[in-house]
This record gives sequence, structure tokens and C-alpha cells, in this order.
Amino acid sequence: MKNIQQIKLGILGGGQLGRMLAQKAFDFNIQLYVLDPDKDCSCKFLGNFLTIGNFRDFDTVYQFGKDKDLITIEIEDVNVDALKQLQKEGVQVFPKPEHIEMIKDKGLQKMFYKEHHLPTANFLWMDEPNWMNLENKIPFVQKLRVGGYDGKGVSVIKNQYDASKLMQGSSLIEELVDIEKEIAIMGARNEAGQIKLFPVVELVFNDEANLLDYLFSPANVSIEIELKAKEIAGKLLQEMQFVGLLAIEFFVTKKGEVLINEIAPRPHNSGHHTIEANYTSQYEQMLRAIFNLPLGNTEAIQAAVMYNVLGEKGYEGVAIAQGIEKLCEMPGAKLHLYGKTITKPFRKMGHITITAKSLQEAVDEMNELKKYFKIIA
Amino acid sequence: MKNIQQIKLGILGGGQLGRMLAQKAFDFNIQLYVLDPDKDCSCKFLGNFLTIGNFRDFDTVYQFGKDKDLITIEIEDVNVDALKQLQKEGVQVFPKPEHIEMIKDKGLQKMFYKEHHLPTANFLWMDEPNWMNLENKIPFVQKLRVGGYDGKGVSVIKNQYDASKLMQGSSLIEELVDIEKEIAIMGARNEAGQIKLFPVVELVFNDEANLLDYLFSPANVSIEIELKAKEIAGKLLQEMQFVGLLAIEFFVTKKGEVLINEIAPRPHNSGHHTIEANYTSQYEQMLRAIFNLPLGNTEAIQAAVMYNVLGEKGYEGVAIAQGIEKLCEMPGAKLHLYGKTITKPFRKMGHITITAKSLQEAVDEMNELKKYFKIIA
Repeated sequence: MKNIQQIKLGILGGGQLGRMLAQKAFDFNIQLYVLDPDKDCSCKFLGNFLTIGNFRDFDTVYQFGKDKDLITIEIEDVNVDALKQLQKEGVQVFPKPEHIEMIKDKGLQKMFYKEHHLPTANFLWMDEPNWMNLENKIPFVQKLRVGGYDGKGVSVIKNQYDASKLMQGSSLIEELVDIEKEIAIMGARNEAGQIKLFPVVELVFNDEANLLDYLFSPANVSIEIELKAKEIAGKLLQEMQFVGLLAIEFFVTKKGEVLINEIAPRPHNSGHHTIEANYTSQYEQMLRAIFNLPLGNTEAIQAAVMYNVLGEKGYEGVAIAQGIEKLCEMPGAKLHLYGKTITKPFRKMGHITITAKSLQEAVDEMNELKKYFKIIA
Repeated sequence: MKNIQQIKLGILGGGQLGRMLAQKAFDFNIQLYVLDPDKDCSCKFLGNFLTIGNFRDFDTVYQFGKDKDLITIEIEDVNVDALKQLQKEGVQVFPKPEHIEMIKDKGLQKMFYKEHHLPTANFLWMDEPNWMNLENKIPFVQKLRVGGYDGKGVSVIKNQYDASKLMQGSSLIEELVDIEKEIAIMGARNEAGQIKLFPVVELVFNDEANLLDYLFSPANVSIEIELKAKEIAGKLLQEMQFVGLLAIEFFVTKKGEVLINEIAPRPHNSGHHTIEANYTSQYEQMLRAIFNLPLGNTEAIQAAVMYNVLGEKGYEGVAIAQGIEKLCEMPGAKLHLYGKTITKPFRKMGHITITAKSLQEAVDEMNELKKYFKIIA
């Protein structure tokens, strides 16, 4: 095998996840190249190591990848055929193209869980959803099989009046489960087959934007729930023969079931806090996994709360971070801005992680800070 | 005042310190530009945000700086006249040019300590050192006033046989003190006058290379010694009216005195461990100081040992990091390679910080890791 520093790594996508991955990659002297359509993307600081091009286009991905040794992604919505071709020609691709393909399609994802007896909410696969066939399923959640992200492509149908929310396009129709809370596990597996899981975290969503609002580490769940989630996560990584970093989101139901909601084959919201709060960050773990290095210690060092910094409602234009002085006065707050020039309501502009000796201390700091720190224009 | 993201920051020097500063600067969306003579320097990943040019040259520094809002350094050996000119024309320069000038010259540094009653080893200023005048001072340390770094420009004269070690050039002749141990404090001060000190660390030097071998945090010193060092550090920052990050190295003598050895107005070896081991890293603290933001919490989260990864003896050429698998197996070890293509004996190629719940645990891991992890060619 080549030495890690001799391997040219190409990343499809230069958003915030690529940015934070790059920040860590330098510590290993990794030769890094990024492909993104937007010259003003979060990885623009890489200058001429950033190629401007569409990662959904076969030729662009193929041309970008053919002189690289290893290709990875920070977004699933990439041209998988080009990745398969590159793999055929000897370029390593992690996560594997077939996993990206499966995860991009919520239908295939669900089928995988079902076939492998991994717990998930009951569902129907419906290529042409129409109200007539669905009225008797109320309440349910409609998820477009492809193209959804951050709450887009998801409709919650609670009663007759929600008929207009029904979307066109091949969909999953999922039983609306009675959610007690949402939790997540970041897991990693390398080619050698080593698996490591980060501790379970708790997710709280912003209903208005359908985006993660904040995250607690550790999650306030029973040991029983924690063990169930870990068992499912380990089994999933193993049965997929996954290579890379996998985010696994779960519903914990009021009955105490732990159901896989959805997964993502890349760094994720649910692991941002690991930069400060754990021995190994999710970004370092991903690099270790795709370079087939021993995986890092996932243990938490401190309690943490992480929240997304979204563009403030009512502002659109050149972004200004307001309240940075207040943030700097907080003993445990760490800012991560994503280098995005333009803000608009609910755009993910950055995140803040607050670490402390106890979770309560961190939450108190967050509540105080949220009054002051805003992205306006 | 401009918003932090609207300020163009120029850094003179693109070595490892500039590299680690850049890695942190992205988290604040700071617009970063680096000047370095070597296109293969540690900041090469910045692509077109790296200007190739000599930071010792007036015109180069002036041209680089005149369209920036704020200039800082990661090396003292820069053209101070250009910085003074830029300052005159309205560019902010932190650390202040007069402090860089003073610190570059070990003679002026020492005079400052003397004038301000800051404890330091006794010394003579000698423009043309010659054996005749010095023989009766044995044992002593000769330090060239300018140009020394990492042990270069320093001669320890212990007896008559060391006559040949005497160097030409204007020098400090310093009493050889009976050193119990060496300690250091990283301190910061912003324009508003706020001062924060990191906890005291202990330094152990490699006699052969005259480079820092490893560092312990916390230092194994009495509270009395710790308080003495902190008092001196605080007084020094205050009396200098320093703005930025200052590394202060001390001798602790066998008699229990705490003497300033030397200082550096920038990130330093003595603060690398803060990336993982403290709430705020020295790099973030420096950014806060020069942008006049509230300074960060300097408290340690974990015990840490940091050691420099030097080019292995007997190897010169394209660097290869050997033993990276072993490093990845260590629960608390974090690698920071500096992106240098070529290794040679004792060249600083990176550093490793090991954090753990106790210092002993971290030291045990270091001793194990040192057997395996090497930079060869």
C-alpha cells in the first residue's frame, strides 16, 4: 500500500462538511483536491486545489477522479456511475458507490433494513402516490425516494386537510410513529473490518425549518435504549460491509422501540460536536476509515451541546455574524462558520459547540448565547 | 470597527505556525492571506491565497500588506520597517512592530527586563566578544543578539576547552544559571487590555539538537513557582502593552528563582498542546487578541504531553511518516504534520499531542509511540 501522504484524495463536494474534513486532513499531510460547482463554496480557501465543476455530471466526476488514488464524498447527490467507472479503473472509492446509490434512494434504504431485519418504521413503496389510495393510511409521512434533504422532500400528513401537502414522485409512505425522542450514532468501519461507534447523541428538531435545532451529548436515554441503538448500528455497518463514516438517525418510540429513521454515508450534523467533545472527531474518523487506518478512540471528554447557526429570518444578502463578542465571552463556546458569503433564512451558516463539565452547564450557556449570536445581512 | 469577516488578515510566514493559525482562522470566516518565500511551505494548501515573496524585504512586505486591514506574523525575522510604514498608513499591525523589533534582538529584550525589574539571568552586552575579556566569566552562555533560533546562535561555554565555540557578532554574555527545570507560559493581551494566561507547562530539551524534546501540561512545579511565573508573565504583558500572543520561557533555578529566559511574540511550541488539551487553543487565542475580541478560556481539559516530530537522523529526502498505524492505535495521540515535503535530521516535521486523564498515562503512551513513529525518507 502507498504511504498515506502519497495518496491523492479527491472529495466530491466543497460545502461545510468538505471544509471541516479538509481542516483535519492537513494534520495528516493528506494531498487534498475538492470538486464543487460553486467557486464561492465553503472550500474556496483551498484556492487552486478546488476544481469548479458539477459533481452530478458523469464526465466532470470522471475527469476529476481519474488522476486521484482515492475518492470520497461529503454529499450523496453525486454521479454514482462515474464513481463506478473510476472504481473499475483502479481508483479507490469510499464510501462504496453501491452504498451511495442505496442511501440516495430512501426506498432502497428501507428495503435494505427490511431484508436484514433491522428495525424501522413500517412503510409502503408507492411509485405514483395519490390521495385515493392513501386516505385510509392517515396519519402517515410521505418521503420522496430521491432528492430530499434537510426536511425537503418530506410531508407529514396528519388529517384530511393535509391533502394538498401530498407530493408527486415515487415515494415511501411511512407509518407515523409516536416519537419519544430522536437520537443518532456516528459509526465508522474501515476496510480491515474494524468498527467503532461514537456515543449516542440526542437530536432536537426545529419544526418550522425541519432542520436539526440542537444536539445533546450524551443523550438522555436509558442504558437499554443506548445498547439497542448501538447493536443496530454495529449490525448495520457490518451487514452493509460499509467503509467510511456513517450517520445513523433513530426514532425512539413511546413504547421504547428503537427504529432506524435514515442514514447518511458521510460527516453529519450529529457528529459536529466531536471536534471538541471527543478524543477523535468525526472528520478524523472518516479519514482513518477511508485510508484503512486503525479507528480512533470515540470516547467523550466533555459533555456538549451543538446547535446549527441558521440564517436569521428576515435577512438575505452578505452575511454578518452578530454577537461574536458575546460568543467569545462564553467559557465553553466554539464557533465554526462555514465561509458562506450569502445568508438567507434557515441557511446553515455554521454551528456552535459548547462543551462543559456537565450538560446542564452547556445548555445554560447555549440559551444565553442564542439571544445574542445571529447571522444577519 | 469592521466586522471580523470583513477584515483582510495578512500573515507574514507560511510555516507550521501559520498553517495551524489558518486551520483555526477558517472557523471564524477570517479572510486570510499568507506571505512566504517558499512555494512548497506549510501553507501551500492555501493555493492562490499564498503570495510567494521574501518577508525580510521591505518592498515585498509593503506590497503584500498595503491592501490588508490587519497584519500579523508567525516568525519574528521579518522586515519591521515595512510594518512600521504600513502602520503609519493605517494598516493595523499586531504584534506591534516595535515589539517585534525588540524581541528580535536579545540585547534589547534583556534591557527591557532589566529596566522593568523583571527577573532574568545576569548578563553583559558585548559588541565584539573576545576570549581575553571573557575567560574570567566562565561558565557562561553566549547568545548572538540577532538571528538565533531553535538553539542556533547560542553557545554554552563551560571551560577553557570551549574557546573555539565562541561566536563572532554582537552578543549577550549570560551567567550560566543552575537550572532545576524550564517552564513556559503562553499569554495573550488584546487592545482593550484584557490579559489571559495559559497554565504553566514544563519543557524538556533535547541536548543534541538544542530543540524542545517534549512538554508536560500541567508542569510539575509548586504552587509558589507557578504563581511567581504567572505574576511575571502578567506584568510583562502589561508593561509592554503587548497586543497578540506571547510565549514566555522561564528558567526555574535550583534556588527556586523564576527567571525569564526568552520570549516570542507568536504561537510557539509551548502552546501546541492547547489545540486538544485546553478550552481555547493558542491559535484561537492569538486571533482573538489581534482582532480585539474577548480572550478565551485557557483552562486545561485534560493532561497532555506534546513532542516535536523531528526528521530522523540519517535520513534526508522526500519525507515518509512511518508508524502511522501505531499512532492511530494510541487512544490519546493526535498527529499534526506540517506539510513539509523534504525531511532532514532534526527538521521539525510535525508534533504529536497525547491527552489523557493523567499525565502519567500520556507519558506512557508517548514512550511507547516514540519507538514506532518516525519521519524517514
